[in-house]
Amino acid sequence: MCFVAYRSTVFPQLQSKMEALLSSCKLFKHWPSILLGLLVALAIKYIKTYRKRRLRTSSWEQLEGTENVAVEFTLADSAIQPALEEKPHVPFVPGHNLNPNGGRRFYELMRGRRSVRAFNANIKPPIDVVEDCIRAAGTAPSGAHTEPWTFCVVEQLAVKQSVREIVEHEEQINYSTRMHAQWVTDLRPLHTNAVKPYLTDAPYLILIFKQTHGTTTDGRKKLHYYNEISTSIAAGILLCALQAAGLCSLVTTPLNCGPALRRLLERPTNEKLLILLAVGYAEDNCKVPDLERKGLQSIMVKY
Amino acid sequence: MCFVAYRSTVFPQLQSKMEALLSSCKLFKHWPSILLGLLVALAIKYIKTYRKRRLRTSSWEQLEGTENVAVEFTLADSAIQPALEEKPHVPFVPGHNLNPNGGRRFYELMRGRRSVRAFNANIKPPIDVVEDCIRAAGTAPSGAHTEPWTFCVVEQLAVKQSVREIVEHEEQINYSTRMHAQWVTDLRPLHTNAVKPYLTDAPYLILIFKQTHGTTTDGRKKLHYYNEISTSIAAGILLCALQAAGLCSLVTTPLNCGPALRRLLERPTNEKLLILLAVGYAEDNCKVPDLERKGLQSIMVKY
Repeated sequence: MCFVAYRSTVFPQLQSKMEALLSSCKLFKHWPSILLGLLVALAIKYIKTYRKRRLRTSSWEQLEGTENVAVEFTLADSAIQPALEEKPHVPFVPGHNLNPNGGRRFYELMRGRRSVRAFNANIKPPIDVVEDCIRAAGTAPSGAHTEPWTFCVVEQLAVKQSVREIVEHEEQINYSTRMHAQWVTDLRPLHTNAVKPYLTDAPYLILIFKQTHGTTTDGRKKLHYYNEISTSIAAGILLCALQAAGLCSLVTTPLNCGPALRRLLERPTNEKLLILLAVGYAEDNCKVPDLERKGLQSIMVKY
Repeated sequence: MCFVAYRSTVFPQLQSKMEALLSSCKLFKHWPSILLGLLVALAIKYIKTYRKRRLRTSSWEQLEGTENVAVEFTLADSAIQPALEEKPHVPFVPGHNLNPNGGRRFYELMRGRRSVRAFNANIKPPIDVVEDCIRAAGTAPSGAHTEPWTFCVVEQLAVKQSVREIVEHEEQINYSTRMHAQWVTDLRPLHTNAVKPYLTDAPYLILIFKQTHGTTTDGRKKLHYYNEISTSIAAGILLCALQAAGLCSLVTTPLNCGPALRRLLERPTNEKLLILLAVGYAEDNCKVPDLERKGLQSIMVKY
């Protein structure tokens, strides 16, 4: 209030001019009508939401009210059908009993993994190996078994060059403008910058897209719940598979490059780039940051 | 425009009343002063942003302009310091060369993994095994090596019961109100509902929290870039480790339960629940949905 009063005395001329300008503005004259329009729109929205909620509640009550859920599925006379086929569940066949050293051996395998930024451009692992690793990634769990991922494997040099051009162009802007000073400083110990030779040196690039939605077998839109978490879990499994195969990798999340890379690879608009992975062998004289990982006591709490 | 005119003729009395009301409102009288205030605030914000950008650009130029980055690090006279210590990089020692069957064998291991909802409450795997699996998860890569994760392992029955109470209470509301009809229907083939016996039957619950930020060794705030993707990747590695150890698991993302579970486990406010994992052995007569996974040709595209 005192701020307003202060400026009213300081700029009296300016104020009277602006008042004249504002009183001539049509928007302010029609306030009552605009307010009414907004109220009507809100009312329509409320009615729509209420209807949706009724529909939802009734389908839930049906599901709860029957002992034999399988019978209820066939009887349900609803326009809403599940994306997955409804089949009786099958016995679970556990693949392995406790492997007493399995967890420890797996940890020993994974602790050797490092993010590698210098790849050997002359040695290319067979594509079969990469395919097996992607098969493994495809075993990831996903929200309502939607499997919302696409793995684009780039091995042609020309395509890798186009990827590199897009990423380096955007990263130049990221480092100089989009990322704040603390972020750029925090990356300094890792020696990363906007120049990315690994994008053309690595024999394979794997661009992992999350699918925000999909299509059911009968052409309806399939909603993909938790698609980002699911696809990231799949990426974690992929990293393990590559490590098991003896390959090196680098996980990157190129800021603002998604749309251009999606267009380059001609992916549909429901796919969004999540992770860009470089895969291959490390260069002979490859160096990595002198990092330590947190100990168990820093990452685990027992209850 | 015609919409406004239409309502003006329909509600003439209402409109005149509202006009009287609006003209008596102090907010509208002081428009010029408020506008000026906003302009001043915007100008201050712009100047601040410009200063930050200058700072950032200069630190980037410094980084680019020096051949010997290590020297530049010590000379830099800036208030902004990286979260990690700046040390020379070290030679990378590859743990394994290509293991020709590694990728295939890893896929064979992982294809046996299924989400299990019926756990054997009487057999408890040793805690050492779970710890090794969490050690493996802790090898995950993370944005700027921030390691933004906390794994809370619950084995006490009383705590598991409290977790179950919180989750079942929220899930009751989720299924009946928060989740839309299509979502509830899509979950029907998986036979999931708001009753969660596995939360007390499973010998271990692992609640995975992402840390939105952390603290450096000298007490400054440490920003955690891409903390959700990083923690989800760690969760993917954890699933592989559990599978390698021969244990069963279930990944869940309990909607709206995060704050209550965080308070239950007395975790700080910078930690947000991402995934709740049940871990143990499957019940003898355990059944799982009759699901198929997408084939390689549906999840992989080659370029």
